[in-house]
Amino acid sequence: MKINDVSYRSVWVDPEDGWSIRIFDQTRLPWTLDILRLTQCGQVAHAIRTMQVRGAPLIGAVAAYGLALALRVDASDAAMERDAAMLAATRPTAVNLGWAIGRMLTRLRLVPPADRVAAAYDEAGRICDEDVIQNEAIGRLGLELIEEIHRARGDAAGPINLLTHCNAGWIATVDWGTALAPIYMAHDRGIDVHVWVDETRPRNQGASLTAWELGSHGVPHTVIADNAGGHLMQHGKVDLVIVGTDRVTRNGDVANKIGTYLKALAAADNNVPFWVALPSTTIDWSISDGVREIPIEERASSEVTHIFGRNDAGRVERVQLTPQGSHAANPAFDVTPARLVTGLITERGRCSATADGLCDLFPEYV
Amino acid sequence: MKINDVSYRSVWVDPEDGWSIRIFDQTRLPWTLDILRLTQCGQVAHAIRTMQVRGAPLIGAVAAYGLALALRVDASDAAMERDAAMLAATRPTAVNLGWAIGRMLTRLRLVPPADRVAAAYDEAGRICDEDVIQNEAIGRLGLELIEEIHRARGDAAGPINLLTHCNAGWIATVDWGTALAPIYMAHDRGIDVHVWVDETRPRNQGASLTAWELGSHGVPHTVIADNAGGHLMQHGKVDLVIVGTDRVTRNGDVANKIGTYLKALAAADNNVPFWVALPSTTIDWSISDGVREIPIEERASSEVTHIFGRNDAGRVERVQLTPQGSHAANPAFDVTPARLVTGLITERGRCSATADGLCDLFPEYV
Repeated sequence: MKINDVSYRSVWVDPEDGWSIRIFDQTRLPWTLDILRLTQCGQVAHAIRTMQVRGAPLIGAVAAYGLALALRVDASDAAMERDAAMLAATRPTAVNLGWAIGRMLTRLRLVPPADRVAAAYDEAGRICDEDVIQNEAIGRLGLELIEEIHRARGDAAGPINLLTHCNAGWIATVDWGTALAPIYMAHDRGIDVHVWVDETRPRNQGASLTAWELGSHGVPHTVIADNAGGHLMQHGKVDLVIVGTDRVTRNGDVANKIGTYLKALAAADNNVPFWVALPSTTIDWSISDGVREIPIEERASSEVTHIFGRNDAGRVERVQLTPQGSHAANPAFDVTPARLVTGLITERGRCSATADGLCDLFPEYV
Repeated sequence: MKINDVSYRSVWVDPEDGWSIRIFDQTRLPWTLDILRLTQCGQVAHAIRTMQVRGAPLIGAVAAYGLALALRVDASDAAMERDAAMLAATRPTAVNLGWAIGRMLTRLRLVPPADRVAAAYDEAGRICDEDVIQNEAIGRLGLELIEEIHRARGDAAGPINLLTHCNAGWIATVDWGTALAPIYMAHDRGIDVHVWVDETRPRNQGASLTAWELGSHGVPHTVIADNAGGHLMQHGKVDLVIVGTDRVTRNGDVANKIGTYLKALAAADNNVPFWVALPSTTIDWSISDGVREIPIEERASSEVTHIFGRNDAGRVERVQLTPQGSHAANPAFDVTPARLVTGLITERGRCSATADGLCDLFPEYV
């Protein structure tokens, strides 16, 4: 997508040297557009852990390039397995990370060490290209949902109000995004859309990343506290909720940023459609019960007790929000049971959040 | 309650001059304990609007003293009615404000102007004393709920985990608090309680006021993002939710800080008891349908886009959280339908959140 009319992906190989990896430092957005150059596997792991890159599809793609960087140093079997395991363990909840590393290993184990670097760059590039194609398909299929609402209401009813939580936009993926892809397409086709952007405490990916993305693309939006969505739904101010996800079980339970479950409850209580957009790489076919089986990352309490923002002098500063001596807990994800999900939007089509719905679209996993 | 072993109320008449009003500047907590001296009605209105004092019972009490200050300047009928109307309009959602001003006027209209100042101080003092007595009763009645859980589980099961939203503690009232009163009493009796404190964006009254209150009294607590409560309930980590309220309809619908409705939905979905603590001055007997009839205050968008905190140098600073050009909406309250409320704790007893339940306790309003 575009920033100031220049097209970008969220991760790319530096065209000048042909091997180093470029990412945006997402911890610096929306204040500064810092493009980082990663030259070592350890830098990639650090970028994932500290959320310089985040978003389930993107961390899979960046980790794949991390393995390519590792192989430049040591392409032996032992080193490759060790570095792959290290990368796969950088964050626990998103399944795309393990999926991307697994796919890389499946190919690279068949390749002699001397050819592994080239094969790794090739495979990581394929992962990226496929992510873009899948997200574009998700965008088209999700667009149909928005068009259905638009046809039913007509233009006179004012903008279609969407609500999203966290950031499942183009910078959470390689391009397009998942939850935001349909919104970009609807906006580009002239449908009057307006997005309620949950700020998404504690790390505020909504207020900092989603608002920045939508603003950069010219999509009308309003930031709200995470607390506000239920009230807006009670008063008919939300037509459709679309969120992304970090892991979907084969039964359709959805792990996503902490607080998603609360919005799904409010949507169900107010008959607001609640859709989840995902590439199939986010599905974990090995588990069924999301609440019991999906590991939920517990992040540092300082993400709750402190926050980054720009002070009146224009400097980005960290400030403390809590009294000295008060501790904080910081579960980073929650699980929305499938019963609260109206449906899933995948690159192959829409389906119900059920094993039957998913298996109809992906019969190879039955 | 106590701060550093000194007992305070949240509002009092200065004992040295016998007429000026003392409050804590709650916008400065938890960083600084600033005691303000209010000498004019306009200062009281400003303190309520800017939330130097907040909490439904407390703003009623402080507004009553505001009328006393106004009468010192002009005790005529016309001035009294004008100043009373101005004070009653400072904030729209809490019903205690209108109730306190109405009670003051009912008494003062019967008193000749020359005697009104003395009568106003006397009546405001009674409002304060009654609030303390009512909240102490709420504390005792709510304590029974905690004791029931404690008896059922025994000490070996670890702490009883309570969750609260916003601040309904002693500084939201004249003393004791509503939702926190039972928790203070349980803690003081040696019951092992632990409180999950919703930070309560956008103004963070949980992280700044509730955490500060509980910490000052030695009650174990953990601050969480507002997004986290549903996840904690899914995993059995919340035994009981207690919140305060700004207005309860005769049918038991509950207006409280924005986001309360989301926690009530999660509590219902996980069979966690959800109780609301209130003095009867918070009941609006004139309306039934809370979602339709309770006016919801829309506050400044800057409360969402910016936040106050303490920087690493120890200075309290305001920082911006959103990109330049992104707007924010800021509804300050939401309404939890009575069907989601396990029960109400009033100064006369516990009851169901229904017209029958309330009328059994308060037959004079049938």
